[in-house]
Amino acid sequence: MATNEKTSKSYLDLVNECDNFPYPQTDPGLYDARLDGLYTLLVAEEESTLGFVLPRVAEVLRGLPSWTLNDDDGTLTLSAGPSEDERSAIVAATTMAMRQTGHFAVLSGWRDELYPVYGRDGKCLFKIERSASPLFGVVSYGVHMTCYTKDAVTGEYRFWTPKRALTKQTYPGMLDNTVAGGLAAGEKPLEAVVREGEEEASLPADLIRERAKAVGNVSYFLIRDEKAGGETGLMQPESQYVYDMELPDDVVPKPNDSEVESFALLSTEEVKVSLRRGEFKPNCALVMLDFFIRHGILTPENEPDYVEIIARLHRRFEFPTVKYPGSQ
Amino acid sequence: MATNEKTSKSYLDLVNECDNFPYPQTDPGLYDARLDGLYTLLVAEEESTLGFVLPRVAEVLRGLPSWTLNDDDGTLTLSAGPSEDERSAIVAATTMAMRQTGHFAVLSGWRDELYPVYGRDGKCLFKIERSASPLFGVVSYGVHMTCYTKDAVTGEYRFWTPKRALTKQTYPGMLDNTVAGGLAAGEKPLEAVVREGEEEASLPADLIRERAKAVGNVSYFLIRDEKAGGETGLMQPESQYVYDMELPDDVVPKPNDSEVESFALLSTEEVKVSLRRGEFKPNCALVMLDFFIRHGILTPENEPDYVEIIARLHRRFEFPTVKYPGSQ
Repeated sequence: MATNEKTSKSYLDLVNECDNFPYPQTDPGLYDARLDGLYTLLVAEEESTLGFVLPRVAEVLRGLPSWTLNDDDGTLTLSAGPSEDERSAIVAATTMAMRQTGHFAVLSGWRDELYPVYGRDGKCLFKIERSASPLFGVVSYGVHMTCYTKDAVTGEYRFWTPKRALTKQTYPGMLDNTVAGGLAAGEKPLEAVVREGEEEASLPADLIRERAKAVGNVSYFLIRDEKAGGETGLMQPESQYVYDMELPDDVVPKPNDSEVESFALLSTEEVKVSLRRGEFKPNCALVMLDFFIRHGILTPENEPDYVEIIARLHRRFEFPTVKYPGSQ
Repeated sequence: MATNEKTSKSYLDLVNECDNFPYPQTDPGLYDARLDGLYTLLVAEEESTLGFVLPRVAEVLRGLPSWTLNDDDGTLTLSAGPSEDERSAIVAATTMAMRQTGHFAVLSGWRDELYPVYGRDGKCLFKIERSASPLFGVVSYGVHMTCYTKDAVTGEYRFWTPKRALTKQTYPGMLDNTVAGGLAAGEKPLEAVVREGEEEASLPADLIRERAKAVGNVSYFLIRDEKAGGETGLMQPESQYVYDMELPDDVVPKPNDSEVESFALLSTEEVKVSLRRGEFKPNCALVMLDFFIRHGILTPENEPDYVEIIARLHRRFEFPTVKYPGSQ
C-alpha cells in the first residue's frame, strides 16, 4: 500500500546519519573546512582539545572574564582555575547567563544535571550543565542496555523496545533501546543502568545487578539536526557504555515515568524493518547494530558494509576520554 | 623469584604496540610528519588512497613502466589497466622482480597467496602476493577465532591457546588465538575459519560451521618491528574478522601442521597474566581484549582505559575496505 511505503535505509545510512562529523583520514579536505569554521575549546595550562564550538556560540563569550576568544588560531580558552571547582563555577555562571538571554533554544531543555569534561590522564577539568554540552561540543557519556529474550530451541532473539513519549523534546515517538540515559558526573555506568532501568522500565535493581552484562561502548560524532531539539549544527560527540541483559519470559518492562509511551517485544525481523524505515532514534539504531554484530545476526557474508560499520560504531575522538567513570 | 619477573604491561600498552601508526585527530603534528615521509599509493583514474609506501621501497619502482613516482605530491601511481587482471599482472611482475633482487627480506617469506586490494565501492583494483602487502602498505584481511569453554555453574571461561612454533618466521614461540589466518582473494571469512580450523587445530569442519559465531572485526594500523620478520618500519593496516566458538569439554584442539607447537586450556587469569607479560602475538592480544570486552570480563569499572581501548580496537583506515568479502 502506498501509505506504508517508506524509504528503505541501509545500515550504513543509519551510521552516516548519526556519525556525521567528517573524518580527517578519509576526508581531509572536508574535515579541515569544517574545523576552519569552528573554535577549539581549551582550558588554560592544559594541552588537550576539549570540544568544538560554533562561532555564533563563541561570540556570546567574547570579552567575558575567564574566557578568551582568539580569532587568529581559532581557540576559545577558559582561563578560570586552577581547580576543577573554580572552573566549574565559571562554566555554571556562564551557562546560566546564556540561558537567561533566551538566545539558545537548546538550553530550554535545562536539566540541572552536571556532565564531566575530562583532560589528559582522565582528570576532570570541569563540569557542565547537561543541556549546554552541545553548545561547547564536549564529549558526553551515557548508558544503553538492550533487554532481550532468546528462544532456547530456535535461538531466536526478541527485543524489548520502548516507544518514546510524543511529549519528549528530543526524538518524540521514535523507538529506543530498552534502557538508556545520560551518565552524570560521579556516577558509575552500572549504577546509571540500575537507576534508569528502574525509572524507565520498572526493572528491579537486583535483577539488573545480577544480569546486566557490560559488552562495550559505542561512540560517534553527531552534528545535531532539528530532531535533536534546539538549534541545528551543534556538535555532539557521544560515548555510550553498552549493556546486554537477557530477560526471563516472565519479566516484562513497563513504563514508569513520562519518558516512555509503551514497550513491545519485537522479533529480529521487526527490528530490522523498523531500522530500515528510520523509526529508531539515531544513536539507538547504532546500539542495535552493535548488538546484531556481536551476536552474529549481521555477518561479513550478509552485510556488505560490515567492516566499515564496525569501525564507525567505535569512533576515536579528538578529545581525551574518561578513565574509571564515576570515581571522581 | 627474580627469574620470573617481567615488565607488567597495561592493556592499553598492548594496544599501543599494535596500533602504532599516529592518528590525525589526536596527533595531527605527528601524523603529518609521518605522512610527509611516505608515498601514497594510488591507481590511475581512481581517487582512493590505497596504501603508504616507504621511500626506500618506492625508489626501486622509479622509472619502471606502469609505475609513476611523483616527488612533488608524494604519490606512487600504478597506471596499468584498465582491468583488475592487467593491474594484477603488473603487480605480480613487479613484486617477483623485487624478490629476485634479494633486497627485501620480507619477500623471503613469499607465500604464493594473493591478497585483494579494494577501491571505492568495494571494487577489487588488483591482487598482490601476501608477503609483499606490507611493502605497499595496503590493508590485509584475516580471520581470528577464539575457542573457549564456559563452566555451566561458575560461568568461568577457559581459552584454548596455541603456542606458535619456534620455527615460524614471525613471532616464534608467542601465544596465539585458537585459529587464525589470512583471508586470500575470493575466500569468504567463514570458509577461511573452517580451513584454518582444520589445518591448524584439527577441528572438524562440520563443528566449525555449526558453532562458529561471527562477532565483529578488530582493525589496527601496525608499523612493523623486528618481531614481525623482514625489514622494520613497513606499514601494515589489518582488518581481522573475529569469531567466537564455545567448545564442548570433549573437543580438544590439536596441532595439525608445523605452525603450532601445542595447545593449552588457560583460565581467564592465566590469559591475563600472559597478556601483561607480553607473551601473546600483538594482534592476538587485541583479539583477546575484544573478547574480554564483549563478554563482560573487562568492564568500565575494572579497566581505566575501557573507552580508549574499544575505539582503538576498531580503527577506521585512510583506505577503502571490502564489501562482501570473497564474492569476487
